[in-house]
Amino acid sequence: MSEEPLGAAKGLRVDEIVSTLGGTLRGDAQHRVLRIASIERAGATDIAYLNHSGKRAWLNSTQAGCVVMPPDLEAEAKRLRAAILTPDPYLYYARLAQWFAELQAEPEAAGVHASAVVDPGAHVAPSAVVGPCAVVEHGAVIHDAAHIGAGSFVGRDAIIGQGTRLHPRAVVLAGCTLGARCIVHSGAVIGADGFGYARDEHGVGVKIPQTGSVRIGNDVEVGANTTIDRGALDDTRIGDGVKIDNLVQIAHNVQIGPHTALAGCVGVSGSARIGAYCFIGGGVGIAGHLEITDHVVIGGMSLVSRSLRQPGHYTGAFPLDTHQNWSENAATLRHLSQLRTRVRQLENKLETQVLPDSTQP
Amino acid sequence: MSEEPLGAAKGLRVDEIVSTLGGTLRGDAQHRVLRIASIERAGATDIAYLNHSGKRAWLNSTQAGCVVMPPDLEAEAKRLRAAILTPDPYLYYARLAQWFAELQAEPEAAGVHASAVVDPGAHVAPSAVVGPCAVVEHGAVIHDAAHIGAGSFVGRDAIIGQGTRLHPRAVVLAGCTLGARCIVHSGAVIGADGFGYARDEHGVGVKIPQTGSVRIGNDVEVGANTTIDRGALDDTRIGDGVKIDNLVQIAHNVQIGPHTALAGCVGVSGSARIGAYCFIGGGVGIAGHLEITDHVVIGGMSLVSRSLRQPGHYTGAFPLDTHQNWSENAATLRHLSQLRTRVRQLENKLETQVLPDSTQP
Amino acid sequence: MSEEPLGAAKGLRVDEIVSTLGGTLRGDAQHRVLRIASIERAGATDIAYLNHSGKRAWLNSTQAGCVVMPPDLEAEAKRLRAAILTPDPYLYYARLAQWFAELQAEPEAAGVHASAVVDPGAHVAPSAVVGPCAVVEHGAVIHDAAHIGAGSFVGRDAIIGQGTRLHPRAVVLAGCTLGARCIVHSGAVIGADGFGYARDEHGVGVKIPQTGSVRIGNDVEVGANTTIDRGALDDTRIGDGVKIDNLVQIAHNVQIGPHTALAGCVGVSGSARIGAYCFIGGGVGIAGHLEITDHVVIGGMSLVSRSLRQPGHYTGAFPLDTHQNWSENAATLRHLSQLRTRVRQLENKLETQVLPDSTQP
Repeated sequence: MSEEPLGAAKGLRVDEIVSTLGGTLRGDAQHRVLRIASIERAGATDIAYLNHSGKRAWLNSTQAGCVVMPPDLEAEAKRLRAAILTPDPYLYYARLAQWFAELQAEPEAAGVHASAVVDPGAHVAPSAVVGPCAVVEHGAVIHDAAHIGAGSFVGRDAIIGQGTRLHPRAVVLAGCTLGARCIVHSGAVIGADGFGYARDEHGVGVKIPQTGSVRIGNDVEVGANTTIDRGALDDTRIGDGVKIDNLVQIAHNVQIGPHTALAGCVGVSGSARIGAYCFIGGGVGIAGHLEITDHVVIGGMSLVSRSLRQPGHYTGAFPLDTHQNWSENAATLRHLSQLRTRVRQLENKLETQVLPDSTQP
Repeated sequence: MSEEPLGAAKGLRVDEIVSTLGGTLRGDAQHRVLRIASIERAGATDIAYLNHSGKRAWLNSTQAGCVVMPPDLEAEAKRLRAAILTPDPYLYYARLAQWFAELQAEPEAAGVHASAVVDPGAHVAPSAVVGPCAVVEHGAVIHDAAHIGAGSFVGRDAIIGQGTRLHPRAVVLAGCTLGARCIVHSGAVIGADGFGYARDEHGVGVKIPQTGSVRIGNDVEVGANTTIDRGALDDTRIGDGVKIDNLVQIAHNVQIGPHTALAGCVGVSGSARIGAYCFIGGGVGIAGHLEITDHVVIGGMSLVSRSLRQPGHYTGAFPLDTHQNWSENAATLRHLSQLRTRVRQLENKLETQVLPDSTQP
Repeated sequence: MSEEPLGAAKGLRVDEIVSTLGGTLRGDAQHRVLRIASIERAGATDIAYLNHSGKRAWLNSTQAGCVVMPPDLEAEAKRLRAAILTPDPYLYYARLAQWFAELQAEPEAAGVHASAVVDPGAHVAPSAVVGPCAVVEHGAVIHDAAHIGAGSFVGRDAIIGQGTRLHPRAVVLAGCTLGARCIVHSGAVIGADGFGYARDEHGVGVKIPQTGSVRIGNDVEVGANTTIDRGALDDTRIGDGVKIDNLVQIAHNVQIGPHTALAGCVGVSGSARIGAYCFIGGGVGIAGHLEITDHVVIGGMSLVSRSLRQPGHYTGAFPLDTHQNWSENAATLRHLSQLRTRVRQLENKLETQVLPDSTQP
């Protein structure tokens, strides 16, 4: 067995993977894989994973050097150079990919780029990185090993937790706080004003200064061009481990419980409270001032217009059809309540009348 | 009565508030409040407001030093240190919050930051602020007391009105104009090209240069990461006092009348014309080339696919249900027009037949 | 005939336009037009076009010096100074507008602005422009005549094709490639991480490093604040000539065929495959892992939740109504499947019974 040190160029030996991440090894324990690839494209030095039954046929043709797969497919592993059997190949893949990412990560020099503008009253940990053209204002705190990407903005008194990364052109406005190990993607805006106006006697909007902030826990990911508004009086709060996709709008005073995920293009209205371990599908809208309990799943493009106090899977989306069929059904839908009345009338008519039974002679 | 000058640290005395903003004072006129807080969290030096009947119970437990409340709750004001009675507590709160915001505002030094790139052919008023890493192009005009946030971009010949503020990383492209006292939040893009193509004989898109601009009135607010496209030939126009939330898309040639509000994630298609004093709910889509009159309210996530010539409240959203119930109803919906035909057939059958009446002997 | 050189100030003579772009000239061949304007606003030195029958009445009142119009309106061209007859005036207008745009384009000095931060290991063609405060990382390649707008970011090893333009504050992250003549509007983010997590035994998300990239063909346009995520293992791919409007979300591993157009606020979920020459209406959601064939049109705000293997026009959106009518219909919709059962019961009741026929004596 080779004793040479590992590195990106060397990849990982299959037995090393199994000894760290677990699983049952089949085939050539010494086989070395250099990267992860999809099962369709993997070659002899690649490791792939197989999760969905739909791709099972690929086991017969893949060129992958090793496949991470569920135990019940063991019989089909024989033609492979190597295989790792594990009950959750997708989770295994996630951990293995993180390992490869660490091996391949470019070392980054800590410090503040000469073109960045960091206020003397800001505190930047020596191990942190502040990229070119980034701006960090007075009183902001950038903790150890945090990374402020090129062109990002960190406002007055904002706090960026340990190991948290702002990708290029992310914005964290005054007074907002992010916990440790968060990832904020490019273009995200954290802490813009909530959308709050009173109407005066003429119907003209009078802006309500938004004086709360945004408090984000640990291990949160915020997608590209997503917006999370500061609270009006209290704070907008995002729990630990929440994952937010791109182009999501989180309004002021919203609270989201730990480990909930929001897919792309979701809009959450003001003061809504979403529980823990929820999954909000893409394009969903959530009305204001309502409450969603833990472990709720919302199907894509649904509008949640009332509180959901029971865990479960909810949906509300118009089924797609050919335009012609849709037109006819939509036209009828506009008279649906009348249609129900007509059915009720028919029922009444038949109930109040004795009909001769044709099955009798 | 104390004659000492006011300031953020000193807060405001209740009688001073009432003498400026009106309302009827109950309780300790000399009581001093330092900030506004929500009624749930307010303490002895905080002032809170109470609007929604749902929070009325808080009057029995709040620790707020003063509460702004409707006159019909006067009886419940007795246990409070102080109270201000006013018919519209929310509007009162808006004005009071603006007052506190002025007291607490950090003074900003006017001038152009050393890292900003301002073309010599641009005109920046001496009282304006241009923040770090901002770019202002040739011919642009930045009026008095305007604020161009860090990393913002103001294109050729664009005009930024008096007292208007671009938050960090906002973009105003060539030739666009903003009136006075506007607020443009981070990541907003004003004046990108409209989405206009002709299709050639092969179905290939031929770009139509977008040569109009965007003209924005006074007192307009544009949310974070919102986009407002320039017109194709004529201009896209946003009226005075319009309030636009985050992640809203306004296409080319759209016109929006004064004091209309658009909530988050709205999309307005090209050449649509929206009247004054409308409220467009979150996630609404508005089709192109249609007209919406004044004083229209659109419920969240509706699609407006025809002109609306009557003021009123319109909605079109699929009602949320459990996924199981939704599945069954959605499946039926795909045959709704046939269901109507079946009801019609039943009606015809019963109409052409004399049924014996069971209520007769 | 004048031999003086043309230029923006000189405009174009009508006979020059026709000799280059085709069409049949009517009226004053020597008439000179300085710009394109809408038929409503055009004056004597403007050229307008007329496409939609709805604007036909404008032919009687327009002040335009020349109108591009369909041949069947020839009779109505007589009162105009000049007219160009062509079967597709909108396509003609597109090409003419491109011509005017070239005449009026400001010459740009090639080179890297002093405030830009270009890594010594990047390759920038001498004819390319890198604007103020832009950042170009190690290994990136900026091809001939490409334009990197102010404050834009081009990550490690990314490739920007010949003549491609990034508008101010666009972001192209590490390893992504854009073909020739693309346009990326302000705030767009190309190559952020796809939204991929495995769930561990406690329901906690484990991030899957996204190691694919984004590959964009030639002549692609990407709208303002649109996001296109990098692939998880393989790449996200956008075909030649694809046009993407503002605030569109393209998830990881998506593939879009040539010359497809996506209107504003569309969301495409992971691994979806969209064919060529499709048109996806505004606000549409496309679920993950499905396939849409070529030449499909999707109506605005529809949810595509299954593969579409036949070309055609599909829709699924709730029809707008007054809030009152909507409420009643929506309430009934929640019991639609039961309503169908009730109709079935009525039908059964009537089928099994012989009814006396009232038309018989």
